[in-house]
Amino acid sequence: MDKRITIYDLAKTLGVSAGTVSRSLNDHPSISQKTKDRVISKANELGYKTNKFAVNLSKQKSNTIGVIVPKLNSIFMSTVLAGIEKIANEAGYNLIISQSLESMEKEKINAKTLYDSGVDALLVSLAYDTSNFDHFANYIKNKIPLIFIDRVTNLPNCSTIIIDNKLAGFVATEHLIAQGCKNLLYISGNLKQNVYSERLKGFQEAVAKHNLIFNNANLLESDLSPGSVKQAITHIKDTGIPFDGLFVANDSFAAHCLKELKKENYKIPQDIKIVGFNNDPISDLVTPTLSTINYPGYEMGILAGQSVISQLNGSIDFQAANSITLRHELIIRESSLK
Amino acid sequence: MDKRITIYDLAKTLGVSAGTVSRSLNDHPSISQKTKDRVISKANELGYKTNKFAVNLSKQKSNTIGVIVPKLNSIFMSTVLAGIEKIANEAGYNLIISQSLESMEKEKINAKTLYDSGVDALLVSLAYDTSNFDHFANYIKNKIPLIFIDRVTNLPNCSTIIIDNKLAGFVATEHLIAQGCKNLLYISGNLKQNVYSERLKGFQEAVAKHNLIFNNANLLESDLSPGSVKQAITHIKDTGIPFDGLFVANDSFAAHCLKELKKENYKIPQDIKIVGFNNDPISDLVTPTLSTINYPGYEMGILAGQSVISQLNGSIDFQAANSITLRHELIIRESSLK
Repeated sequence: MDKRITIYDLAKTLGVSAGTVSRSLNDHPSISQKTKDRVISKANELGYKTNKFAVNLSKQKSNTIGVIVPKLNSIFMSTVLAGIEKIANEAGYNLIISQSLESMEKEKINAKTLYDSGVDALLVSLAYDTSNFDHFANYIKNKIPLIFIDRVTNLPNCSTIIIDNKLAGFVATEHLIAQGCKNLLYISGNLKQNVYSERLKGFQEAVAKHNLIFNNANLLESDLSPGSVKQAITHIKDTGIPFDGLFVANDSFAAHCLKELKKENYKIPQDIKIVGFNNDPISDLVTPTLSTINYPGYEMGILAGQSVISQLNGSIDFQAANSITLRHELIIRESSLK
Repeated sequence: MDKRITIYDLAKTLGVSAGTVSRSLNDHPSISQKTKDRVISKANELGYKTNKFAVNLSKQKSNTIGVIVPKLNSIFMSTVLAGIEKIANEAGYNLIISQSLESMEKEKINAKTLYDSGVDALLVSLAYDTSNFDHFANYIKNKIPLIFIDRVTNLPNCSTIIIDNKLAGFVATEHLIAQGCKNLLYISGNLKQNVYSERLKGFQEAVAKHNLIFNNANLLESDLSPGSVKQAITHIKDTGIPFDGLFVANDSFAAHCLKELKKENYKIPQDIKIVGFNNDPISDLVTPTLSTINYPGYEMGILAGQSVISQLNGSIDFQAANSITLRHELIIRESSLK
């Protein structure tokens, strides 16, 4: 790669000192407007770029915010990121985005890389199997703002941005019960993750409140990948329980279940009613359309962005950083009608 | 924010010179292993971080790759990004990701910001309305690798990574004709974009080859947003042409059309056959399932990542950078059966 234009190149071309170039570019009062204009015009012409790294070095600021998400290619996560990027960009920050690919080991490496890169703050949605949080210790020790989104843990002085997953699980389940379901199945993701375990608590509370049975067979833990749909259908058919209501932890898996159940000649919603989660675009396009919980991903991203920018600007006290809970909403469509 | 640990802090704590600390951290042969171990251990303990910005300053390298995409929250784009991130991460590069929100003006600002940030390379998928490319001039002048993905333009020494959209459009259209369709409609995105205009050329070629009619009414340009589905349905119903085959420029819009046409009592595929584009997960979950063109987003991202890393490592001659065309594939499902 060619050497980039430096202040010295500019000085030589213009026949002035490097100090004059530097002061001109920094709008120093000791330099005449005419000289400033000449320097800036030449700098633009030659494609000089301000060396932000050098500037930031002295300021101990990189104007970058690190983000670690489990997977970039998830509708929910890319929607959250779109919101974060919008706010960060408006505030003059760049996002450095990495994916843990649902692995704690990769999350650790990403956290270290971003720390070494000098990010001013870090936003994280945890990997599927993250069970230890030592890789965030340097951020906390050095008071670098650290915000967890959706898949969270509670660490000292770290904010979390979540929805009330327990309440959402309760609302979805109580809706199925109100529609007449008596034998409910919750198809969950990895129960180590707060989002899935909280929804289970809500499911159990609703079932208990209405004096329905909950035992092991009313819960199926799954990786929610398309390859696991067959296992879910087998559970529904072979457990001996006449399931008439499914609460499924995401819309994509719910849509796959819906499709397979139709193939097995179940009528939806007559035989089995279904409620999904996330309000993915898919939920409104399948037949029958899928009842779901609206999960405000874009708003989460906007709030996460605003929260981190406020902390960086010092307009929120870092120590006061805490939990923000967004509103969710039950959307009733055809898959859970009476 | 607190001051971060410096080499001088480490030196003071350890009772050695700053030079010794620096040489130890850089594994200099003049320092004993015992001293190196002591320094590294203390550096880890206190959370010292290598100042990559300072290191990179001297090397003129930031180890970051800039990316500008139209929208982060698009299934296709987030899939491409997942592939790019994987390769960049493995090669020790961070991605700085920004979105143009489909606006050339924002794309210009992003290109400048990333340039000023000192990215080592730039990957771009163009915004909807980008018609001028001066904002990339500084990259080209300074020989910073610049690669266009999917929505591309031809600039000197810049690589492009695409599929053969014209051929894909031809194949999709000829399939509809082979299934018996005589009156075809291509529902396109903005025809300024190469991906949509090339598909139109393929559509027109197939129609011409089979002696079918193509006039203005056989093309509908749309922004492909859910809000524009009604316009498409009106076009199908009110143009006076008995359309029996739709080629739709993306699966999401095709799925919305499918849903609305069913509401209007069209039978799919008996009355109208449909082929979409992208092979989004949605295409296999709607009823009837949607025939489509598989668009290899993840492979595109992997190849874009490999191409940029090769250029940065000097293993591809920068001047030889050129166009990579990936294979697409027609996937026949229920929506276009006879």
